[in-house]
Amino acid sequence: MPLYKLTLEYDGSFFSGWQRQKDAFTVQQALEEAIISLTGKSLQVQGSGRTDQGVHATGQVAHVKSDVPVSCDAWRRGLNFYLHELPVRVLEAVEAPETFHARFSAISRHYRYIILNRPSESVLERKRVWWVHRPLCLKAMEEGASYLIGHHDFSSFRSSECQAASAIRTLDQLSISQKGHHILFDIQSRSFLHNQVRIMVGSLKRVGEGFWPPLKIQEMLSCKERRLAGPTAPPEGLYLTKVGFSEGS
Amino acid sequence: MPLYKLTLEYDGSFFSGWQRQKDAFTVQQALEEAIISLTGKSLQVQGSGRTDQGVHATGQVAHVKSDVPVSCDAWRRGLNFYLHELPVRVLEAVEAPETFHARFSAISRHYRYIILNRPSESVLERKRVWWVHRPLCLKAMEEGASYLIGHHDFSSFRSSECQAASAIRTLDQLSISQKGHHILFDIQSRSFLHNQVRIMVGSLKRVGEGFWPPLKIQEMLSCKERRLAGPTAPPEGLYLTKVGFSEGS
Repeated sequence: MPLYKLTLEYDGSFFSGWQRQKDAFTVQQALEEAIISLTGKSLQVQGSGRTDQGVHATGQVAHVKSDVPVSCDAWRRGLNFYLHELPVRVLEAVEAPETFHARFSAISRHYRYIILNRPSESVLERKRVWWVHRPLCLKAMEEGASYLIGHHDFSSFRSSECQAASAIRTLDQLSISQKGHHILFDIQSRSFLHNQVRIMVGSLKRVGEGFWPPLKIQEMLSCKERRLAGPTAPPEGLYLTKVGFSEGS
Repeated sequence: MPLYKLTLEYDGSFFSGWQRQKDAFTVQQALEEAIISLTGKSLQVQGSGRTDQGVHATGQVAHVKSDVPVSCDAWRRGLNFYLHELPVRVLEAVEAPETFHARFSAISRHYRYIILNRPSESVLERKRVWWVHRPLCLKAMEEGASYLIGHHDFSSFRSSECQAASAIRTLDQLSISQKGHHILFDIQSRSFLHNQVRIMVGSLKRVGEGFWPPLKIQEMLSCKERRLAGPTAPPEGLYLTKVGFSEGS
């Protein structure tokens, strides 16, 4: 049966996260309802990863199997037509090999976290950034980030509700850059623990404010206790920007 | 009497433009009401220029004269406290010489217009960009723009409601750049005619789509008739980013 790979953008502030739930409206539900409208069939959509309530996506990937004779461009346009009143859009729809799986074929997840660092908040970027009014030291945060890159046990950097069997992950990238008043964290790994990105950013923000020395990040890692790391950064600054797949998948 | 220069950000989609009106809520009114709350006095705010309904600002400048003993930082924080529920913020408040006038001391106005050029609209940038789905040719638009730069009669590029005595203006900058799917128009002049920026962008967009050759922009200029230029680009892509003043003012 043909399999379609969908690339998605959504405004996380409107939805109760990605994953379908009984009592809350989620991105997955919005998509599956649009698919019913478009094809007349109830089809399940598989995402490459769950995003939490409030977390945005500019490059979430999902797949759906369907033998309804609809072209790729008709998938994109048709779904966007039915999604019109909701803040989620299909940016691209392509046919993928039958072996493709949005979650299991993914070899990298890319996130961007945006902090707005200035005295006044931004009304134009409401729910799009984390506003931090205390000046942040980029250099100190970069030093702190250097301890996180690589193969580690990230037990201190995962939510107490995280259900992953192992807390060992390989962080391939955590680069920090500044553009005007914006501080951008670009973060990449094969996979992440629950809240890992937001706890890392929340901890680095404390370093950037000068409350903690950069070396404290290394201590957090080695102690493997959630309570030693910083607070979880709010979801509104976080974007799932890209999911990478191996060639041929 | 001390004079304060305020730098402002606002979300134009919420307001009926800058200028105070009888039957509509404007940025000027929002500010003047916040000033009453802060100082107990009814003081008039003078902006460096009017922005139309829907047009945003990241660097509008206004001044207010007041002998209420309030420090610069208290102006910023205090006004932002009373503006809390409205999408307008004071980014900076500084004391300026008594001769300073937000409108008459200004020697340059800087606008940015943002087009999102891709097949699907953006839900994260709703009311923040003009979504154009047909691919735009940057080179053609740049050639078209080259005819507009300099000292010209911009009669074709002003609203029929424009009240300026002369349509002659000097356009100092109209540069176009691309960042991913975004096309940025950076435009600078001492002053602009009513809707001038939006009519220029609307005309260049027609050139970029290939409906008109770039040279048609030069014809529009020389004919001095509004009906020959392109449609007025929508306000949601337009930002007043900066107002320049001579040193010492």
